[in-house]
Amino acid sequence: RYGEAELEDQVGVVTGLAWTEVGGEILTVEGVMMPGKGKMTVTGNLRDVMKESIQAASAYVRSRAVEFGIEPPLFEKRDIHVHVPEGATPKDGPSAGVAMVTAIISLMTGIKVRRDVAMTGEITLRGRVLPIGGLKEKLLAALRAGIKTVIIPEENAKDLTEIPDEIKNKLDIKTVSRMDEVVPLALVHPPQRIEWSEDGGEGKEVVPPKNEDPSTGLTAH
Amino acid sequence: RYGEAELEDQVGVVTGLAWTEVGGEILTVEGVMMPGKGKMTVTGNLRDVMKESIQAASAYVRSRAVEFGIEPPLFEKRDIHVHVPEGATPKDGPSAGVAMVTAIISLMTGIKVRRDVAMTGEITLRGRVLPIGGLKEKLLAALRAGIKTVIIPEENAKDLTEIPDEIKNKLDIKTVSRMDEVVPLALVHPPQRIEWSEDGGEGKEVVPPKNEDPSTGLTAH
Amino acid sequence: RYGEAELEDQVGVVTGLAWTEVGGEILTVEGVMMPGKGKMTVTGNLRDVMKESIQAASAYVRSRAVEFGIEPPLFEKRDIHVHVPEGATPKDGPSAGVAMVTAIISLMTGIKVRRDVAMTGEITLRGRVLPIGGLKEKLLAALRAGIKTVIIPEENAKDLTEIPDEIKNKLDIKTVSRMDEVVPLALVHPPQRIEWSEDGGEGKEVVPPKNEDPSTGLTAH
Amino acid sequence: RYGEAELEDQVGVVTGLAWTEVGGEILTVEGVMMPGKGKMTVTGNLRDVMKESIQAASAYVRSRAVEFGIEPPLFEKRDIHVHVPEGATPKDGPSAGVAMVTAIISLMTGIKVRRDVAMTGEITLRGRVLPIGGLKEKLLAALRAGIKTVIIPEENAKDLTEIPDEIKNKLDIKTVSRMDEVVPLALVHPPQRIEWSEDGGEGKEVVPPKNEDPSTGLTAH
Amino acid sequence: RYGEAELEDQVGVVTGLAWTEVGGEILTVEGVMMPGKGKMTVTGNLRDVMKESIQAASAYVRSRAVEFGIEPPLFEKRDIHVHVPEGATPKDGPSAGVAMVTAIISLMTGIKVRRDVAMTGEITLRGRVLPIGGLKEKLLAALRAGIKTVIIPEENAKDLTEIPDEIKNKLDIKTVSRMDEVVPLALVHPPQRIEWSEDGGEGKEVVPPKNEDPSTGLTAH
Amino acid sequence: RYGEAELEDQVGVVTGLAWTEVGGEILTVEGVMMPGKGKMTVTGNLRDVMKESIQAASAYVRSRAVEFGIEPPLFEKRDIHVHVPEGATPKDGPSAGVAMVTAIISLMTGIKVRRDVAMTGEITLRGRVLPIGGLKEKLLAALRAGIKTVIIPEENAKDLTEIPDEIKNKLDIKTVSRMDEVVPLALVHPPQRIEWSEDGGEGKEVVPPKNEDPSTGLTAH
Ligand SMILES: [Ca+2]
Ligand SMILES: [Ca+2]
Ligand SMILES: [Ca+2]
Ligand SMILES: [Ca+2]
Ligand SMILES: [Ca+2]
Ligand SMILES: [Ca+2]
Ligand SMILES: [Ca+2]
Ligand SMILES: [Ca+2]
Ligand SMILES: [Ca+2]
Ligand SMILES: [Ca+2]
Ligand SMILES: [Ca+2]
Ligand SMILES: [Ca+2]
Repeated sequence: RYGEAELEDQVGVVTGLAWTEVGGEILTVEGVMMPGKGKMTVTGNLRDVMKESIQAASAYVRSRAVEFGIEPPLFEKRDIHVHVPEGATPKDGPSAGVAMVTAIISLMTGIKVRRDVAMTGEITLRGRVLPIGGLKEKLLAALRAGIKTVIIPEENAKDLTEIPDEIKNKLDIKTVSRMDEVVPLALVHPPQRIEWSEDGGEGKEVVPPKNEDPSTGLTAH
Repeated sequence: RYGEAELEDQVGVVTGLAWTEVGGEILTVEGVMMPGKGKMTVTGNLRDVMKESIQAASAYVRSRAVEFGIEPPLFEKRDIHVHVPEGATPKDGPSAGVAMVTAIISLMTGIKVRRDVAMTGEITLRGRVLPIGGLKEKLLAALRAGIKTVIIPEENAKDLTEIPDEIKNKLDIKTVSRMDEVVPLALVHPPQRIEWSEDGGEGKEVVPPKNEDPSTGLTAH
Repeated sequence: RYGEAELEDQVGVVTGLAWTEVGGEILTVEGVMMPGKGKMTVTGNLRDVMKESIQAASAYVRSRAVEFGIEPPLFEKRDIHVHVPEGATPKDGPSAGVAMVTAIISLMTGIKVRRDVAMTGEITLRGRVLPIGGLKEKLLAALRAGIKTVIIPEENAKDLTEIPDEIKNKLDIKTVSRMDEVVPLALVHPPQRIEWSEDGGEGKEVVPPKNEDPSTGLTAH
Repeated sequence: RYGEAELEDQVGVVTGLAWTEVGGEILTVEGVMMPGKGKMTVTGNLRDVMKESIQAASAYVRSRAVEFGIEPPLFEKRDIHVHVPEGATPKDGPSAGVAMVTAIISLMTGIKVRRDVAMTGEITLRGRVLPIGGLKEKLLAALRAGIKTVIIPEENAKDLTEIPDEIKNKLDIKTVSRMDEVVPLALVHPPQRIEWSEDGGEGKEVVPPKNEDPSTGLTAH
Repeated sequence: RYGEAELEDQVGVVTGLAWTEVGGEILTVEGVMMPGKGKMTVTGNLRDVMKESIQAASAYVRSRAVEFGIEPPLFEKRDIHVHVPEGATPKDGPSAGVAMVTAIISLMTGIKVRRDVAMTGEITLRGRVLPIGGLKEKLLAALRAGIKTVIIPEENAKDLTEIPDEIKNKLDIKTVSRMDEVVPLALVHPPQRIEWSEDGGEGKEVVPPKNEDPSTGLTAH
Repeated sequence: RYGEAELEDQVGVVTGLAWTEVGGEILTVEGVMMPGKGKMTVTGNLRDVMKESIQAASAYVRSRAVEFGIEPPLFEKRDIHVHVPEGATPKDGPSAGVAMVTAIISLMTGIKVRRDVAMTGEITLRGRVLPIGGLKEKLLAALRAGIKTVIIPEENAKDLTEIPDEIKNKLDIKTVSRMDEVVPLALVHPPQRIEWSEDGGEGKEVVPPKNEDPSTGLTAH
């Protein structure tokens, strides 16, 4: 049922947490990738700030492509469409940024997203995760939807003290300050960095991913 | 006569159900395909949410092309025009999504749409069917137009209890949660999945379609 | 004089019937075709619904090109400009659709339009003719302009009972439900269907046009 | 001085007559042509109807190119810029159409425009000249500016009876119903029709222009 | 300091005189030229009429390129950016036209602009200079900024009688009716006309510039 | 934490100082560069004047590319995305111009920006630095964020007398009048001018940078 956790891990489908006039809600970010020419289309009754959030997410992934194991020319050979149901509800704000980045990395790498993880956070072009508002309402929406793990911005950790224990006890809350921390939590397995030289050499070798310490994720019980 | 069921099965012509200020109405989605360059045009006094609905429908079909037996490069060699008469009436909302997807699959495969089937439902990029409003008014419009079978979202099944029996007895109501269930109900015969490799190999072999259990369609009598 | 029937049969010039705030009026649809790249330009102070009407008309003709004897690639080698004088009057609504289609067919085939015929009707992408409003005012405008034959939508036939005999006696009123019926009434001779294969074979042979029974045109006296 | 007749015959510069909130005014239509790719730019604080008027003028000339002695491919190799000073004054309406057509023909043929001629009239795509409003104010503006000859629409001839003799006696007023009549009155010499075949044959031969009887120009004394 | 005369003669930098809500002000028109494809960008919080003024200025220079010694194809190989500080102040109106033309000629020819000259005037596509408003305020602004020479439209010469002698005595005021008169006053040396044949012949020979009599510049003391 | 000085020197990340309705704030300008075609994208809820500021910054760098050691064709082979968090806050005004230029030079040269430097100032196309408002609030914001060095426009030096000593004593305030002075203060090492000839000669030799006297930077204690 829409508004609940997904039934299976999927490529390009990420559960975001939004705060709307009717309270906290989960918001599904859906992406599909097609053979194409690098065109990005966004639908779902999105207002300008959320649209820009997708543009920034795309630029972040494109500028770090090799770290995520994506061959840069792939961006010019694929079209991406990002849709956020439900179409009747206007959506705005930057707090779906983390979910947008995750959706695009999943699409470009083909790695599935963990269906039991929801996330919220504005992102910057360098992959920093900025704080968001309405934390309590968003955590409640996650609970209602049957989500197990919630990724929130590190700078919102201080707000956790005001969240009742009965909420915090039922969720595994991860605080993150960079996209580098989000990716291993959100995808079913981490992408592998590749080597890439612009001048045509396709002899890429898989190198170990940058050391990302998932232990920095603070879990609130 | 316009506003009634079509007189024959046609390619690209789908009967949707809309809920307007003057009550429930049937709404014909008409698509034509022409030699072209992948351009999509939409007309019929459509507002933004309905326009986005067509964009999302197109992306869904394009991203699943092989499942519907469509060779992906075909999208780059055809223009599609979708029109929704009557031009004098503004139209909005996401509930024609299911009809839009059906129209595009019909156009791209050349398989006709069953003229005695009407449908309503928002779609997502993954092919999920989301609930709609105004169910009773839409069913009444279908009846008035001489429609036999109506496809509605699974999540609207609960609303059927409030629909009078005299309506339900005269319609074959199918509830669906995914486009996979809509396609075999709406087209005169199901499309056949093809194999496709991007690297030019045109030696496609027809393989059996994914196992879709049409028995999951709940019929209300 | 402008606002009266044309003085000679011309290519691309069609007399439509519009209903404006100042009553019924005749409205000349003028098209010209030029060597070009498939661009369509519309002018004449047209509002969105009338502009969309031209887009739909063009898609209808393009998708049925061979039936009208038009080689499909011609659409990519010509630019079309459609203008509706008088520039000072805003024009809207879908009821010039039939005239738009006729103008485009005339341009693309080079067959002249009968100057003593006026027409009104919304069209759909499949070539159906939908009913219009203001029938009486439009017929009066046709009379004033010296028009002999008026093509109206079949679904408006019922409205003819309310039209005074002194009007009906002076006009030859044809009711139509499809563009197929309009074309032989409006052009000085019917276009001839061609065979066309996309894969370059230019060996087209003229085949007999589809059997169109002009006798289905109801003439009201 | 601006607002007066030009000091010499020029290519691409035409004197129009406009009717503004401050009364009748002369309005200079200035065009320049440059090596380019068929782009048309318009400036001068023009509102939509006047902008469309230039588009229609351009389509008219392009579709009749050979009649005016213009080789059709020239349109794709030149950019045209049309400007209407004074930039501070918003300008609208279709009545500069005749002047726009004249400017474009002059630019494309290189034939100068007679500096002592002013003109007003809406044009259609077929080159018909439609009536305009504010005739008296426009004639007064022409007089003040030292203009000798004024071209007005034939359909405005009836309005001449209300114009005082002291105005009519000082102007040579030509009434026209088609652009064919305007061109020999406005240009210093008439353009010569050429033969043109699309398929590359550049062996054009100059043929006599169509018989245009300038005597149909009614001169009011 | 901004708002004062420039410290050195520069290419592409012209001092205009504007009349704003806070009185007369000097306004610097800054242009830069880059390798490119003929794109023109304008910034500086400019409203539509001033933007059009730059478009017209560009078309004027482009259509007279050889007179200014500019090889026409250069326009297709360069991008130009025109900026008018200060970004916080909206700017509008056509009276910077003369400064815009001067900036573009300077950029395209590489000839510096005299830093002690300020100018005001609307231009037309043929290079005529039309009168402007707020002459007194503009002259005062020029004085405050330490400007020596001011170029104004000939048609504003009559307004000089109302300007106090203490202003006129400190400025060398040049009145001009055509851009031809502005160029030798504004640039450190006049551009040299070239010969140019479109058909590739690059054997250009420098010919003497058209006889421009700078003595027609009326100087008010 | 966002709103504080960066933790390390980075390429393309510059700390600007803005003055918003809630007082002075630091504002991070983030740029990333990707293989591309010269496209510039800007996000971060920017209003028109700030958007234009980035366009002007880009044109300034492009027109002086060789001075900054950038090979001009690089601009056509890269896409740049500039983002200014936080997305929820609308941002406007020209005072981030200096930071925009610095970000673009850093991106194109690969030279890191000093993380302990903040800057404010409008720029012109020639690289002049124009004064800004709200100096005191901006300096306070810099202090709060732990910034050491602040670059301000020379023309704002006079406003420093009104700034309390307890602020000035904790900051190293540099006043600048040109971008030439900003670059060596903001980047970890200065870019080296290159020689470049348009006609393909890639034999560039590194030449000494123009003599820029960093001692002109007035430091206020
Ligand atoms: Ca909901
Ligand atoms: Ca953490
Ligand atoms: Ca209806
Ligand atoms: Ca079901
Ligand atoms: Ca009329
Ligand atoms: Ca009939
Ligand atoms: Ca005037
Ligand atoms: Ca006449
Ligand atoms: Ca100022
Ligand atoms: Ca003079
Ligand atoms: Ca903040
Ligand atoms: Ca300094």
